[in-house]
Amino acid sequence: MRFFDYSITATDPATSARRGTLHTPHGPVETPVFMPVGTRATVKGVTAPQLLDIGAQVVLANTYHLFLRPGHDLIAEAGGLHAFMNWDGAILTDSGGFQIFSLADTLSLDDDGVRFRSIVDGVWHSWTPEDNMAVQQALGADIAMVLDVCPPYPASEHEVAEAVRRSASWAARCKTAHHREDQALFGIVQGGLYPDLRAESVERTAEIGFPGYGIGGYSVGEPHDAMLESLEPVCAALPRERPRYLMGVGTPTSMLRAIGLGVDMFDCVLPTRTARTGTALSSNGRMNLKNARYARDFTPLDPSCSCPTCTGYTRAYLRHLVVMKEMLGSILISIHNLAFLLDLMSEARTAIEEGRYGAFLAEWMSGPGADDY
Amino acid sequence: MRFFDYSITATDPATSARRGTLHTPHGPVETPVFMPVGTRATVKGVTAPQLLDIGAQVVLANTYHLFLRPGHDLIAEAGGLHAFMNWDGAILTDSGGFQIFSLADTLSLDDDGVRFRSIVDGVWHSWTPEDNMAVQQALGADIAMVLDVCPPYPASEHEVAEAVRRSASWAARCKTAHHREDQALFGIVQGGLYPDLRAESVERTAEIGFPGYGIGGYSVGEPHDAMLESLEPVCAALPRERPRYLMGVGTPTSMLRAIGLGVDMFDCVLPTRTARTGTALSSNGRMNLKNARYARDFTPLDPSCSCPTCTGYTRAYLRHLVVMKEMLGSILISIHNLAFLLDLMSEARTAIEEGRYGAFLAEWMSGPGADDY
Repeated sequence: MRFFDYSITATDPATSARRGTLHTPHGPVETPVFMPVGTRATVKGVTAPQLLDIGAQVVLANTYHLFLRPGHDLIAEAGGLHAFMNWDGAILTDSGGFQIFSLADTLSLDDDGVRFRSIVDGVWHSWTPEDNMAVQQALGADIAMVLDVCPPYPASEHEVAEAVRRSASWAARCKTAHHREDQALFGIVQGGLYPDLRAESVERTAEIGFPGYGIGGYSVGEPHDAMLESLEPVCAALPRERPRYLMGVGTPTSMLRAIGLGVDMFDCVLPTRTARTGTALSSNGRMNLKNARYARDFTPLDPSCSCPTCTGYTRAYLRHLVVMKEMLGSILISIHNLAFLLDLMSEARTAIEEGRYGAFLAEWMSGPGADDY
Repeated sequence: MRFFDYSITATDPATSARRGTLHTPHGPVETPVFMPVGTRATVKGVTAPQLLDIGAQVVLANTYHLFLRPGHDLIAEAGGLHAFMNWDGAILTDSGGFQIFSLADTLSLDDDGVRFRSIVDGVWHSWTPEDNMAVQQALGADIAMVLDVCPPYPASEHEVAEAVRRSASWAARCKTAHHREDQALFGIVQGGLYPDLRAESVERTAEIGFPGYGIGGYSVGEPHDAMLESLEPVCAALPRERPRYLMGVGTPTSMLRAIGLGVDMFDCVLPTRTARTGTALSSNGRMNLKNARYARDFTPLDPSCSCPTCTGYTRAYLRHLVVMKEMLGSILISIHNLAFLLDLMSEARTAIEEGRYGAFLAEWMSGPGADDY
């Protein structure tokens, strides 16, 4: 077994769901998988042993933020991201493209690369695809992503077409500039909601050839139904034997539907970000722990959950912590929210192995939580 | 062995240090002991398993804060503090007197009790000693403290004398009102820096008879040397066979010197409060992790410490977290700071067992950290 080989061990008869294993230098990653987000080399409020305890296999870190502070050179000096953040599981870094292009007013772009102003000190930086590969190789995650062009939302067909072509050209340059053998470089499919451009992007990116493919360019503002409709032909056209990573998507319903279309990997800040506002995820939907109805509710957050938060604490205690703005509230709800999504992926994997993913998905979609995500 | 029996298992030949065991319904407490502070039924940022992992035996919770929110009745309904906060070790609650009397402008006091305004909503509450016992018995800690009168600082001899006499009268009423057999009620010695009043307070309180004695009334503003000078005759006069708890003191140097005078128990917010500002405690003194000198320092916080923070992370990573205001920075430094004080107490216990506490104390006092605490 070579690093970054992807073995598909089961497929679902009724959907396009796949059960697979991606082999990384930091252990196997069982897919479908949810990746907790550790923007600045820390999953906010959660320690590495706590992440392991709830079954996290791979975490995501943001190249843009780490490039600015503390700097990729410092992290390389520390022995890379794994050593720096004391996480011995797998790590994926994004390219930072998404963050740069979200700040489009402080940006200049041409075929060679992109110039952007630091949100920290206003200093201008310039990144060619080659520069970006140097940064991500210094960070040393198990999986790096190509630098792509993310057009602003809403974008015209012309703008998206230009982004698709420029992204493909940059992807080829990234592949040439990427040398680390203990790190996989994934391509990224763009194309927004334009079917022809999605098809073109898949073709151009797959032609270059990568051990895995990110699917980007679905903006946060877009309705999930439109995204899922557009996603189906993308998955169908991508090489079957490579993992597919739907970037930035992590609500339970969208993940389960995307798995049914053949997606293998997800990430999202939802579980930790909502936790810090006192909101818990459960199979019955979102729960706002600030609500007075929980004040004397001495039952677990989610009675069907076996995470440390649900086995150790009551809704009444969590509400007390949230109302008092105690750090432990954010910590315990973050742990539960992550565990909830990790468990959901584990259930999905089992359903695929047992050839009943279609039924599992249908049950979730008619369940009490579906409308709430 | 009955609950709250205190066995002294070793004494030091050169000092008055004692090594003991206090038997509580939630396990033995080995003394000298440092008690992490969990003001609102949570040691800020640290989970119960993390506290156990670093050797915490007993945590303190604040009756004043819990009385106001979420309320002692709610906590009783939850099954008491242990169940509410998911901590199966021992717990001590203070009476809340210290907090009430710190807010002296919103206070009225007579022989019967004290009226005070809530810091939450401005509502007036009144506490007699009997009321306070009802609250602490509802909270259900292993150790409760009598309601005492804490004069403001600086206080005249007359004010302190009045506080001593009123505290003694309230202590007797607390004892009468206290019924829980699974909870010990400790008396409190007052008297400020007035030797005669300290002596009177010891005599009056010991006459009532308690299974343990708090030593209060050393204000935060007082110099530690004056406190330690005043403490010596207090310890000498207290019943030998009962544990002595120096309330609110927890700097390394003061604890070690007080142990040499015969003190057994301590609590302080120092380790967690300083952690949240990015300051770590070590045998070399305080370390401000914001300092740029740590930016590329890839050594552990305290190379001689075996806590999860020091074995897993570098100063450079902790600095990154602190500078980025990441929650994990507060969490990891809190864990280390608590572990540092818990380990210091463990070393003190071993030194007493081995009859070399005098040398241990002298070594600390001439060491690099002594001047910094």
